[in-house]
Amino acid sequence: MTQETGGTESSAGTFAVPRQTLTQLREEFDQELFGSVIPFWERHSWDRERGGFWNCLDRQGQVFDVTKYGWLQGRETWLFSKLYRTVEPRPEWLAMARSGAEFLRFKALTPDDRIPFRMTADGTPISIQRKIFSECFYVMAMAEYARAIGDDSYLREAERMFALVWSWAFDWTKVGRPSYAGETPLQALAVPMILMNLIEELTDGQAVPYERELAECQKAFLRHVKPEERRVYEFVRPDGSLCTDLPEGRQLNPGHAIEAGWFLQHWAERQHNAELSSLAVDIVRWSHAEGWDKEYGGLFYFLDARGHSPVQLEWSMKLWWPHCEALYAHLLDYRVTRSETDWALFQTVKDYTFGHFPDRDYGEWYGYLDREGRVSQSFKGGAYKCAFHVPRALLLCRNLLADLEQRA
Amino acid sequence: MTQETGGTESSAGTFAVPRQTLTQLREEFDQELFGSVIPFWERHSWDRERGGFWNCLDRQGQVFDVTKYGWLQGRETWLFSKLYRTVEPRPEWLAMARSGAEFLRFKALTPDDRIPFRMTADGTPISIQRKIFSECFYVMAMAEYARAIGDDSYLREAERMFALVWSWAFDWTKVGRPSYAGETPLQALAVPMILMNLIEELTDGQAVPYERELAECQKAFLRHVKPEERRVYEFVRPDGSLCTDLPEGRQLNPGHAIEAGWFLQHWAERQHNAELSSLAVDIVRWSHAEGWDKEYGGLFYFLDARGHSPVQLEWSMKLWWPHCEALYAHLLDYRVTRSETDWALFQTVKDYTFGHFPDRDYGEWYGYLDREGRVSQSFKGGAYKCAFHVPRALLLCRNLLADLEQRA
Repeated sequence: MTQETGGTESSAGTFAVPRQTLTQLREEFDQELFGSVIPFWERHSWDRERGGFWNCLDRQGQVFDVTKYGWLQGRETWLFSKLYRTVEPRPEWLAMARSGAEFLRFKALTPDDRIPFRMTADGTPISIQRKIFSECFYVMAMAEYARAIGDDSYLREAERMFALVWSWAFDWTKVGRPSYAGETPLQALAVPMILMNLIEELTDGQAVPYERELAECQKAFLRHVKPEERRVYEFVRPDGSLCTDLPEGRQLNPGHAIEAGWFLQHWAERQHNAELSSLAVDIVRWSHAEGWDKEYGGLFYFLDARGHSPVQLEWSMKLWWPHCEALYAHLLDYRVTRSETDWALFQTVKDYTFGHFPDRDYGEWYGYLDREGRVSQSFKGGAYKCAFHVPRALLLCRNLLADLEQRA
Repeated sequence: MTQETGGTESSAGTFAVPRQTLTQLREEFDQELFGSVIPFWERHSWDRERGGFWNCLDRQGQVFDVTKYGWLQGRETWLFSKLYRTVEPRPEWLAMARSGAEFLRFKALTPDDRIPFRMTADGTPISIQRKIFSECFYVMAMAEYARAIGDDSYLREAERMFALVWSWAFDWTKVGRPSYAGETPLQALAVPMILMNLIEELTDGQAVPYERELAECQKAFLRHVKPEERRVYEFVRPDGSLCTDLPEGRQLNPGHAIEAGWFLQHWAERQHNAELSSLAVDIVRWSHAEGWDKEYGGLFYFLDARGHSPVQLEWSMKLWWPHCEALYAHLLDYRVTRSETDWALFQTVKDYTFGHFPDRDYGEWYGYLDREGRVSQSFKGGAYKCAFHVPRALLLCRNLLADLEQRA
């Protein structure tokens, strides 16, 4: 595999970034995270009255829709738990984490163990997806909150839900998705990918006692990786073969592949698996090479692997989260490879991202830019954007920069 | 209502377009319809082997996805039946109409009377929507094909399905949509609107024996019309009150409102209802006034009635179908009002539309432009675009232009 994946490229380099540069960057990330992003969510997103979080916040932080979203309740609960446990035990972070965790567990969770995708401010279901992601973010929230407060009942709850998620994950008819005779069975990258990250979150990176599940996820994930094409496909047949006669089977989502790359790298490093680590580096590099817009900069949202016109109307937009994922993935790869290539990729993404997404007037980042990089949607929180990708990436990056700084 | 709706604006004018202009325009529309658009679908969309139509066609007409779409099978069957019956009895048009009608009735229709949203090339279901639109287009197809070939069994089939659609239309739990306690009951403009058009298609404009249903649709439709704001809302509460604390309740879709305007105008004229006719004119004018992009031209896809950032990522894109609907709606309004205002609006839309959408190299029109008017998706047929809006608008316009020409 090494030759095909260009393993030599990913082998250890000797490029040393000056300590001063690292310090400056770390300070910049800290300022962004603690001076702009976190304060925005602290100020505007907490629903002190009913618990949990307002999700739909306009540019200035005003609520433009009182609907609460299950994915986002879980993600923000996870974030404030993580900040409390790993950054500083600020009482207000704990209060927000508790508010989210209790809202999820005691108000949002339905009697049949689903987390609504959309719910009213008090947690009454508006819609429930025929997918497993709301429950995945519930697991993340419960596990991190459990560690933040040292309460095992929340960890047991996370484990209980993970077992359910695992039992549903590879057969979505179990969450109500109908099945029809004409369907082409395809496996979504999103499933093994999120489960791989979920096991990391649930076990705080120990894998015990989920080694079997982790191995299964890695195996399923690798079916999407095609070194001979230098690509990660969003959908493949269950045996890993391509299905390029359908648009789903040709779909590329560079930001998603890059995120999967660092999920994989985390485990590769823990498992001391050099080949897997090298592949994870390559995945990130390939996805940047194909996904970066050579004309206007930024990562395309969707591409078609055979050059057809992408069917997603928003294919050429530049979204916040692929850039957040890329920031951390390239920096992580630099730490792994010490290669100038990865540092340069990090710099490219960092310049574009910091140059386009942050809102210097009201804090937080814009989420949706058009191809040319102009703001298309001005809101800061919506059905899919919340206190998650931006602060997670900034936190991961500032920790990594601090680590590099110490070693420099 | 007349004062509030600006009835004086819509009152009869005396602006006469020179006959020569009308002739020139009619010829231009004819050339576009019969020289570019219809030949594209004739050449590329017919699946002679299995019956029905390929829907996903790239710029040049090559199939990029063999999936067939229920909406589009119905729409294209309707189109070729209509061409055969009202333009010229060309054998190839009849053959295509028959192929579509038989595919729908004998291959696509499920035992429980649903038309799949997506199906394999031979009609095996891939997915079935929890909506009623596939079945609406089935009714249109069956009714028009019945008239084209003079076969009552197809008309009975259309009536049978219309009765089912009517019984489902205002309660989508009947087509499998779950209902949750937290939902805000909202009524979608799309439902009374399409039913109003469906009754026109089913009865060839006679309404008999669906007067009660038509009256109910008109009543339901008018709940969305807010003359005091000069707006048509996509979603209102069942009593017609606004729900502006939710993005759905603030959603405007100018092209959709304009399409609804001409659906309403057709009935207003038949019913000799001057007040309704004036309101229909106003709806089209308001929607143009608010929906037209003053900076780059073209109709926005979505807007928020309270000025919030629209939640649809594609809000600022310029789609083919709103422009098709606007072409006909403004021209129809000119015929009704003889007002220079409506003629000028028609000209504005016509210049933008003919200047941006047609593909002079391979025929047919592009479907999706970015805000600035550049092609974003190059395919000619996809999940929602087929042989329908473009040829329907061109046909309606050329017939209207011919009528104006004769009277000039």
